[in-house]
Amino acid sequence: MNFIRGRFNKSADKLAAEYIASIPFDWRLYPHDIAGSIAHVRMLARQGIILAEETEAITNGLVAIREEIEQGKFEFNSELEDIHMNIEARLIEKIGEVGGKLHTARSRNDQIALDMRLFTKEAISDTLTKLRELQQALISLAEANKGAVMPGYTHLQPAQPVLLAHHLLAYFEMLQRDIDRFGGCLKRTDVMPLGSGALAGVAYNIDRDFLARELDFSQLSQNSIDAVSDRDFVVEYEAAASLCMTHLSRLAEEIILWSSAEFNFIELDEAYATGSSIMPQKKNPDIAELARGKTGRVYGNLLALLTTMKALPLAYNRDMQEDKEGFFDTVDTLLSTLEVFTGMVKTLQVKTENAERMVKQGYILATDLADYLVKKGEAFRTAHEIVGRLVSYAMEKGKSFSQLSLDEYKEFSPRFAEDVYSITVESSIAARDIIGGTAPKRVEQALATAKKIVGEYLHGK
Amino acid sequence: MNFIRGRFNKSADKLAAEYIASIPFDWRLYPHDIAGSIAHVRMLARQGIILAEETEAITNGLVAIREEIEQGKFEFNSELEDIHMNIEARLIEKIGEVGGKLHTARSRNDQIALDMRLFTKEAISDTLTKLRELQQALISLAEANKGAVMPGYTHLQPAQPVLLAHHLLAYFEMLQRDIDRFGGCLKRTDVMPLGSGALAGVAYNIDRDFLARELDFSQLSQNSIDAVSDRDFVVEYEAAASLCMTHLSRLAEEIILWSSAEFNFIELDEAYATGSSIMPQKKNPDIAELARGKTGRVYGNLLALLTTMKALPLAYNRDMQEDKEGFFDTVDTLLSTLEVFTGMVKTLQVKTENAERMVKQGYILATDLADYLVKKGEAFRTAHEIVGRLVSYAMEKGKSFSQLSLDEYKEFSPRFAEDVYSITVESSIAARDIIGGTAPKRVEQALATAKKIVGEYLHGK
Amino acid sequence: MNFIRGRFNKSADKLAAEYIASIPFDWRLYPHDIAGSIAHVRMLARQGIILAEETEAITNGLVAIREEIEQGKFEFNSELEDIHMNIEARLIEKIGEVGGKLHTARSRNDQIALDMRLFTKEAISDTLTKLRELQQALISLAEANKGAVMPGYTHLQPAQPVLLAHHLLAYFEMLQRDIDRFGGCLKRTDVMPLGSGALAGVAYNIDRDFLARELDFSQLSQNSIDAVSDRDFVVEYEAAASLCMTHLSRLAEEIILWSSAEFNFIELDEAYATGSSIMPQKKNPDIAELARGKTGRVYGNLLALLTTMKALPLAYNRDMQEDKEGFFDTVDTLLSTLEVFTGMVKTLQVKTENAERMVKQGYILATDLADYLVKKGEAFRTAHEIVGRLVSYAMEKGKSFSQLSLDEYKEFSPRFAEDVYSITVESSIAARDIIGGTAPKRVEQALATAKKIVGEYLHGK
Amino acid sequence: MNFIRGRFNKSADKLAAEYIASIPFDWRLYPHDIAGSIAHVRMLARQGIILAEETEAITNGLVAIREEIEQGKFEFNSELEDIHMNIEARLIEKIGEVGGKLHTARSRNDQIALDMRLFTKEAISDTLTKLRELQQALISLAEANKGAVMPGYTHLQPAQPVLLAHHLLAYFEMLQRDIDRFGGCLKRTDVMPLGSGALAGVAYNIDRDFLARELDFSQLSQNSIDAVSDRDFVVEYEAAASLCMTHLSRLAEEIILWSSAEFNFIELDEAYATGSSIMPQKKNPDIAELARGKTGRVYGNLLALLTTMKALPLAYNRDMQEDKEGFFDTVDTLLSTLEVFTGMVKTLQVKTENAERMVKQGYILATDLADYLVKKGEAFRTAHEIVGRLVSYAMEKGKSFSQLSLDEYKEFSPRFAEDVYSITVESSIAARDIIGGTAPKRVEQALATAKKIVGEYLHGK
Repeated sequence: MNFIRGRFNKSADKLAAEYIASIPFDWRLYPHDIAGSIAHVRMLARQGIILAEETEAITNGLVAIREEIEQGKFEFNSELEDIHMNIEARLIEKIGEVGGKLHTARSRNDQIALDMRLFTKEAISDTLTKLRELQQALISLAEANKGAVMPGYTHLQPAQPVLLAHHLLAYFEMLQRDIDRFGGCLKRTDVMPLGSGALAGVAYNIDRDFLARELDFSQLSQNSIDAVSDRDFVVEYEAAASLCMTHLSRLAEEIILWSSAEFNFIELDEAYATGSSIMPQKKNPDIAELARGKTGRVYGNLLALLTTMKALPLAYNRDMQEDKEGFFDTVDTLLSTLEVFTGMVKTLQVKTENAERMVKQGYILATDLADYLVKKGEAFRTAHEIVGRLVSYAMEKGKSFSQLSLDEYKEFSPRFAEDVYSITVESSIAARDIIGGTAPKRVEQALATAKKIVGEYLHGK
Repeated sequence: MNFIRGRFNKSADKLAAEYIASIPFDWRLYPHDIAGSIAHVRMLARQGIILAEETEAITNGLVAIREEIEQGKFEFNSELEDIHMNIEARLIEKIGEVGGKLHTARSRNDQIALDMRLFTKEAISDTLTKLRELQQALISLAEANKGAVMPGYTHLQPAQPVLLAHHLLAYFEMLQRDIDRFGGCLKRTDVMPLGSGALAGVAYNIDRDFLARELDFSQLSQNSIDAVSDRDFVVEYEAAASLCMTHLSRLAEEIILWSSAEFNFIELDEAYATGSSIMPQKKNPDIAELARGKTGRVYGNLLALLTTMKALPLAYNRDMQEDKEGFFDTVDTLLSTLEVFTGMVKTLQVKTENAERMVKQGYILATDLADYLVKKGEAFRTAHEIVGRLVSYAMEKGKSFSQLSLDEYKEFSPRFAEDVYSITVESSIAARDIIGGTAPKRVEQALATAKKIVGEYLHGK
Repeated sequence: MNFIRGRFNKSADKLAAEYIASIPFDWRLYPHDIAGSIAHVRMLARQGIILAEETEAITNGLVAIREEIEQGKFEFNSELEDIHMNIEARLIEKIGEVGGKLHTARSRNDQIALDMRLFTKEAISDTLTKLRELQQALISLAEANKGAVMPGYTHLQPAQPVLLAHHLLAYFEMLQRDIDRFGGCLKRTDVMPLGSGALAGVAYNIDRDFLARELDFSQLSQNSIDAVSDRDFVVEYEAAASLCMTHLSRLAEEIILWSSAEFNFIELDEAYATGSSIMPQKKNPDIAELARGKTGRVYGNLLALLTTMKALPLAYNRDMQEDKEGFFDTVDTLLSTLEVFTGMVKTLQVKTENAERMVKQGYILATDLADYLVKKGEAFRTAHEIVGRLVSYAMEKGKSFSQLSLDEYKEFSPRFAEDVYSITVESSIAARDIIGGTAPKRVEQALATAKKIVGEYLHGK
Repeated sequence: MNFIRGRFNKSADKLAAEYIASIPFDWRLYPHDIAGSIAHVRMLARQGIILAEETEAITNGLVAIREEIEQGKFEFNSELEDIHMNIEARLIEKIGEVGGKLHTARSRNDQIALDMRLFTKEAISDTLTKLRELQQALISLAEANKGAVMPGYTHLQPAQPVLLAHHLLAYFEMLQRDIDRFGGCLKRTDVMPLGSGALAGVAYNIDRDFLARELDFSQLSQNSIDAVSDRDFVVEYEAAASLCMTHLSRLAEEIILWSSAEFNFIELDEAYATGSSIMPQKKNPDIAELARGKTGRVYGNLLALLTTMKALPLAYNRDMQEDKEGFFDTVDTLLSTLEVFTGMVKTLQVKTENAERMVKQGYILATDLADYLVKKGEAFRTAHEIVGRLVSYAMEKGKSFSQLSLDEYKEFSPRFAEDVYSITVESSIAARDIIGGTAPKRVEQALATAKKIVGEYLHGK
């Protein structure tokens, strides 16, 4: 019962059949495929295209098939190419020729477009939840270490002191944008394609609005050729996932650095670390490393699909079957990475004393000295130059700023006075008192806002 | 006067200096850099951080520098690394030490974030206009060929007849999604970063809201570390551009196919075609080919920036200087491709008779025959099978459907009757009478909607 | 028995353990892992590091485990992370504590480097064979259609007539370069890494030359840190595969074009074509389409690994575990594509009459007319211009070259004479009589050379 | 004088002409284009296709044009599309109609293939030299710090002690493979395409062997269609460059880490570091960061060209014009990065005392303890477990290995004896005494071999 080779006298070459079969990966679409089919036959009955009793037989058959699949009793058959044909063939096997009415007013082209959109909507919904949970974990870590200071880095060099909480909230912001982007993607995915048929629209009096309502879509596709040719929504998910993995890879890099013996700012929980097969002393941040590494595959999947879609003439081409494996992999990778990061962030310990020790080394307050001179009337650029020379001098003498005498300061500028010694890590941090700055009260506000945003989402669910 | 090497005793190695200089490409940001600086010094004066007369001197100096650049009189200097330092050095040269106050309460890190956001907002605005203009050209071509039919293809095989206008409107839909995506990107770009300083926020009493108003931003960045580390908006533009180029590459492919001697559906205007250095008869669709080819570079730029951003620890790292060249190239490529496509689409001639001839060959009405049987009571799957055998028979006999006798039809199904001969290309097209289908009245409606959407935008400007 | 968490008090988080486990995909390395282990314990015994009877016990245990795996009786355990630990744990289960000696003088870092190199060498060998088989199929198709002519295209426009065999041999050349590139990759893969240990080299008196001989490697790695950090050979295979898929995608594109109703140059065998779920008349070149589409994933896998490897500090990092899935996918994709193409090419029918009809349309002999004038003394550039005008004239009159009178010819150049009518498709083809040209005797020679090259390889095996 | 629009009545649209013009970037091929043309006309004269005096006039004209270009006096014209047409038009302007004979027996398709191959051969030659120079710099740095030890890392955790020289030689090996790969690419680039004409071969009695000799090629292309359709050599250079940049990005990452305040293993020379516009104390490793960032663009260029070439039907298509900008960018990026790294590596100072301090912290000798037990008869796996527990104990007690008493040791295994205290960093390093290991004498040998390899190359030039 191979419906799609009707006019052929010859069966497919075995290797060719395997090459073409998508069932090894698209079986996963079965709940969406069956949900779509049930809505479709209901609509066909309402419109008088098939009989009510036919609809009932088909629906019952499909529900039974779904159970077979869920219980692992369904035998997928590569010769039937894909999930649609596997289900349809089994349906006819179960309920007889009436099963052949399921495919009325439908083509695999609009059917797969539907299945993929249903799958993607679900994937986005899961992604949003996991993004919120990771935001929550970051907030908790920030709150648990509210007073902790650390060197803020640029070029991986200590630049200015910041609050650890402020640093962590930078990731909150990144995830916030990810959420926004996935939201836009959801809107463009939420479009019901059934009725487009093979490419020209179907030649039956169907009710597309009913289908949209049944399947919880807010919009209808407006052009049948586009509807079967379009995989923008998949690419867009993959692009949003790529940016999200970029963010996670940056967090991963910092977790790796901070876990190193040299930085030693954090201690991973043992449940989120691994050992070595040969070196008994090792405690490795493998999860962070692997997440950083998996960024590559998420980028690769994006490029793969863009490349596949490039320069395809309209409408459906078999190349488009390649929209699935990479996409499924991206969804799985992103969801599991978000989830495992949430656990890792929640359980890690900050060694605040080490971060604080580093922040007190070196000349991290140099900008504050320049700002000090500016406030005493110096042009910033001149102040910057003066402090540059002062740093050279202090390094040469092996002294920290606080070890320099006022006379030494005055050699560089007469504007220096006793109050130069009141410049401290704490005063430096407190001085960044603007929206988005690292001053404690600003960070407090940002934390409150962040908690509110996440809380509303997680409780609203 | 090299401000950034204050504590160093040694000048940069010549090759190293060249390697690091961004002025060969970031000079292009000068209008944004100067606009940002003017707003910044105005704000500094309002807040009492610098004097009103200092602001005036600086503003006048910056305006004069902008003119120098526009008139090609400005000498860019690689040793000063970037556009910011080139302008600041020239400012001090022109107005003296007071120019050194410009950089008060600002770092290159928030300054470049600002410049890039201003540039990107402008780029998005230009992109949206050009997308609308291409939509307009597609609509005009569709209207000029309202009655034209063509084979609708799947797998590049004739599948079902469609209206050319319907086919063209598929591209309207793709561009519609592009517009939507660039709109989302604009929203996330429209965030004012000044005040973030190097990474921790600035230690001055600045007015960020004033800056946002002056520079026409609707939001403020909420975390200083994120604000200087974030290039999401650039990546997002590049991702949206990649999808848009995918769409244009598909149109390009079709233009190339349709221009071939074998298809021969269209004739490009000579102004949009090229010849050969050796073959005098050639008329080549080079623009479409080149656009198809340029898709690669737009994808490449996206991947390049994603790769660059991967696993960078916070906050600013010099790697991020790589956000510019590829991005500028993507913007330039997309804008010029959209513009040249608009001209090409507007001027091409459709050879409707050739498309119509092709639509009448072969067995393109086979789906309609199957639907015919379904309407007479056959299950679709059985009908499909019957018509499959009928096609085999007709091919063997070398007959078209209309050349088969009713007796021959009846051999395949008793349901066939005289009215089978009323199935025509026209009836097939008219039968696809659903939202999004190719029936003439549906296409008419879709065209009207499309015109309204584009018209509102282009007149609203 | 989880060897790698020795110093930890806490077991891994379940999700974390799954996240990190590579056994779901690296189980596939088992034959290489076991072969490597057997060679390793033999060497350990020879060097007196373990006893001969221990070696025997371990070897027997490993052989038994290999059988368990091959018979599907082995239970892979995700908590044991990878194939190495799964085998080692089972070994100790089977033969007791002595099994714990297997890992003497070895680390997972050099072990996985070995396994991957063994796998890659085998993959390259398979790839080379399949490339030769496809070359063979191309040669056979060329020979079976030795006299067939077709339009040679540039810009998908008919340019000059060529022999089909000549066109097919272009693909022979591409595959020839692929073979050469895989050969270079093989040379750089053929390097034995055992002895590198975790990264510093092992602290035992081992015999690396013996290991290389046993495992059929021709070189030893020369730096232990590099040996465990290097995945160049995997990237290089993926890069060579990407170019090879580029070639196959070009052939796929031509098969799709040639199968179209408009070109109609070839007929695919039904065993290598598919039908439609809704359109009974369809015969689709799905294999070629899917191969074209799969090019994307092979590029994506390459980018993924490059991205993963970027900026990793030495030596081994867990990111490198990501070297496997994409690579295995690339190998599987390339091998199956080559194999299915061989079948498809072997069985397709050329409709030589259609190709010949197209070659006789239009002004494909225009270059020959220009060359004719050159041989009569005209400068090429002038001749090109004259023929350009002649083509315009002929198109306007709706005449072919042979329908123009000699007087008409002479209006464009007095150099035209009666012999202009002897310019034909055949004379044009015959005139390209240089090495690499399309003249029949040159193509004959090229075919002979190609047969010799392939024959030697396939018989040499 | 626009030769390529001969049959057209209409000039190109201005924007279209600019869109298509390659002269803004391919002007750079002029020395190769002129060299190719001179060889070509010499050959034409030898074969009696043009006269000796014509050849002389053309050659002199071309030499004069080359000078005009070199002196900046040549006016490039976008309407003439490319470098070939710009030169040919100027030639005819200078020497009259005879200049029109230059394009006899040649097409732009084989001409650009030639120019690109000549350019690529030169690029490879430059790349090889710069790779050798960087190897030299690494060797010098290793020799200057021969006794220095450092922690060898896996997972960025201290794993086992190694010699710094051994670590640096890992990069020598990577560059060695790069050299090998570029060598393979050179072999496949060194193929002379002239004579292929537009695609079918030229219809003149030309001497391709003479051309190959004149232009220093060792092979002739064997199929004219392939010769004009092939850009494998460009892709292959870009793939080899991508791997090379991967290596440089790893070195860059380590330089950045080692320059951090936390690691503090090296001090960059001021000539290779930069400061900050706002933070006077900063000394940033910008060159290493930027090189790491530029890795993205080199990958992007590779993917761009692969994407462009995907699924192009034979032979030449205008898409292929996109082979240039990204490729030139890759060549420039790789050459400048190699050169600036050579300078940076040569001048950096190693703070051996800091690396040594780190190597003495922690439990980096744990593997040596396990090996110690193995040599006393323990199975490795058991030994690994024992030492794992010992590390836990020592950490808890806050003791280093040397601070543990023998009694404490013996609690974990009776095999421990007094000689356990002779395990030191030095003994650990010395024990890795195998080919490729970090033992001083092995590293000495490796250095000698490396010097010999590089010396031979650099002196052989």
